[in-house]
Amino acid sequence: MGRLFFGFIGFCNYRMKIAVVGCGALGCFYGARLCQAGLDVHLLLRSDYETVRDKGLRVRSAEGELRVHPHAHDAPEDIAQCDLVIVGLKTTANDRFAELIAPLLGGGTAILSLQNGLGNCERLADLFGPERVMGGLCFVCLNRTAPGVVHHIAFGKIVLGELRRMPTKRTHTIVEMFKDANVPCEMSENLEKSQWEKLVWNIPFNGLGVAGAAGLQALEAAGRNMPLKLVPVMPTDQLLGNPLWEEWVRGLMSEIIAVANAKRLAVDADLEKQMVNYTRDMCEYRASTLVDFEGGQPLEMESMFLEPLRQARATGVTVPRLEALCAVLERLNSRR
Amino acid sequence: MGRLFFGFIGFCNYRMKIAVVGCGALGCFYGARLCQAGLDVHLLLRSDYETVRDKGLRVRSAEGELRVHPHAHDAPEDIAQCDLVIVGLKTTANDRFAELIAPLLGGGTAILSLQNGLGNCERLADLFGPERVMGGLCFVCLNRTAPGVVHHIAFGKIVLGELRRMPTKRTHTIVEMFKDANVPCEMSENLEKSQWEKLVWNIPFNGLGVAGAAGLQALEAAGRNMPLKLVPVMPTDQLLGNPLWEEWVRGLMSEIIAVANAKRLAVDADLEKQMVNYTRDMCEYRASTLVDFEGGQPLEMESMFLEPLRQARATGVTVPRLEALCAVLERLNSRR
Repeated sequence: MGRLFFGFIGFCNYRMKIAVVGCGALGCFYGARLCQAGLDVHLLLRSDYETVRDKGLRVRSAEGELRVHPHAHDAPEDIAQCDLVIVGLKTTANDRFAELIAPLLGGGTAILSLQNGLGNCERLADLFGPERVMGGLCFVCLNRTAPGVVHHIAFGKIVLGELRRMPTKRTHTIVEMFKDANVPCEMSENLEKSQWEKLVWNIPFNGLGVAGAAGLQALEAAGRNMPLKLVPVMPTDQLLGNPLWEEWVRGLMSEIIAVANAKRLAVDADLEKQMVNYTRDMCEYRASTLVDFEGGQPLEMESMFLEPLRQARATGVTVPRLEALCAVLERLNSRR
Repeated sequence: MGRLFFGFIGFCNYRMKIAVVGCGALGCFYGARLCQAGLDVHLLLRSDYETVRDKGLRVRSAEGELRVHPHAHDAPEDIAQCDLVIVGLKTTANDRFAELIAPLLGGGTAILSLQNGLGNCERLADLFGPERVMGGLCFVCLNRTAPGVVHHIAFGKIVLGELRRMPTKRTHTIVEMFKDANVPCEMSENLEKSQWEKLVWNIPFNGLGVAGAAGLQALEAAGRNMPLKLVPVMPTDQLLGNPLWEEWVRGLMSEIIAVANAKRLAVDADLEKQMVNYTRDMCEYRASTLVDFEGGQPLEMESMFLEPLRQARATGVTVPRLEALCAVLERLNSRR
């Protein structure tokens, strides 16, 4: 294990080198906060490369406007070996892990996936070894509005844990690093449980928000009679503003909680009520899948819907609403 | 100076005793976070005393539901001497400082006002000595929805500084304490400047939001011909959704920036544009003064409007919009 792992005691004086791979709104937002805190942040960019290189990053937020100038790169080889690689890629780009991440790894480099859904950490573990891999769940509302410009709409917390093991010294170091950069951060002792708890929100509000574009009847018919004419996607407030859709939201939540508990993850049954309540309090929010769909991007089908469905089936718990949702989303996604 | 000031090195092992005086949404929210982080938190409560004593505090948030059981008290004498007193009182209750805070003070007790506007720290300094006093600006959207229940709608950062002096070791300690409790926290080297920057947002969105209830014509006439029939208050999105109101928002912001700069506080002129932009990105939000007004509570006239107006006049900068706004608000407030 390299300097990150053994460098814990002297951490305060050591300036960690961090690569951010996948610099959409999420990668840019957390990269900007870490850069502001004085860490040595390197962004791996594609379309925004020149803008960020020349003008830096801008985060617009009620908590204060941020302008920072992290190192901008268009090839991972230019960044070379880091202490920590933060992965913010859309999971539809997971097949690029090897090419984008391998050049960044030294003996002790840790990899933190902040991506949506299931299976991302496992894929990283298969490629680069499980001991490197951490996962983080992000509770944040963001929009990327122009190259190098991110709007921070609300929140920001990360819940962070190790893949299939308890937190280590490294986990503490990374949690402290984020807190120090004014990113609220909590340690998860059970990353898998935290991931399923996040899915309780993500599956209905991302899935139904897009499936709403096909209409409730398509969903009731599990996508089989889906009309071709599409209506607009449904942000959180619309889904909770209609009793028929709210029933779908709650029904999906119950199914996911049941699956998580069949996996012995001990998720609180009260989570359905809690999440509906706080989402009602939130402003209208277009979850990331809605933004992808409206922008003509492929949906994060695999990590956010199909892998959870696969794991649900493996438990034997029946999930008729999740089955119907996946069927509709797959039809919508195949028409991109 | 007592244990807080000299206890810095051993801070990690010392459990700070904190009193929260004024437990509306703000006091309860930050009190709950500090309690969750393991600090010895004592709330001074009035109407919510029994509920919090029996059931604790609940914070509903997309960042995770929080249930904590801080110590609940209905008299400051029961709390006695603390290391830190956090003041979350409405500034309309500032005449109760002596009675509520004096029993909490030992030799080294620090006092942190998280209240709106100007003059609060000065009043605390007059009563208890300037060396005790810190001020914090809160960037947070909250609602208290029931006794002991707070909805966390967005954000949470505190910008914190010393009264009329540079940060000290104590300031660092308190900033670290909040960060450790997952409250983003930044140090201000110039509290007065930070307060004026906050007023650039607070005066238009709190003031016009309520004055909106008297109509634009009342404002144009500086309140002299104000019709008696009131229309509903105007949340942020409505103020920015109407070009005439937006002009008032921007005009007020310019006036306040001009006053701050006449006071040599070097506020960025770009702040007007920044604040209008990020407020557009935010969800509809009813600033605290709107909530007070709708609830029949007195407005925070003195700290948020009249003291800034007094200081504006003292600089010689003309502030016709602020004058008109204050005139309308005073008429509305006197009709409570």
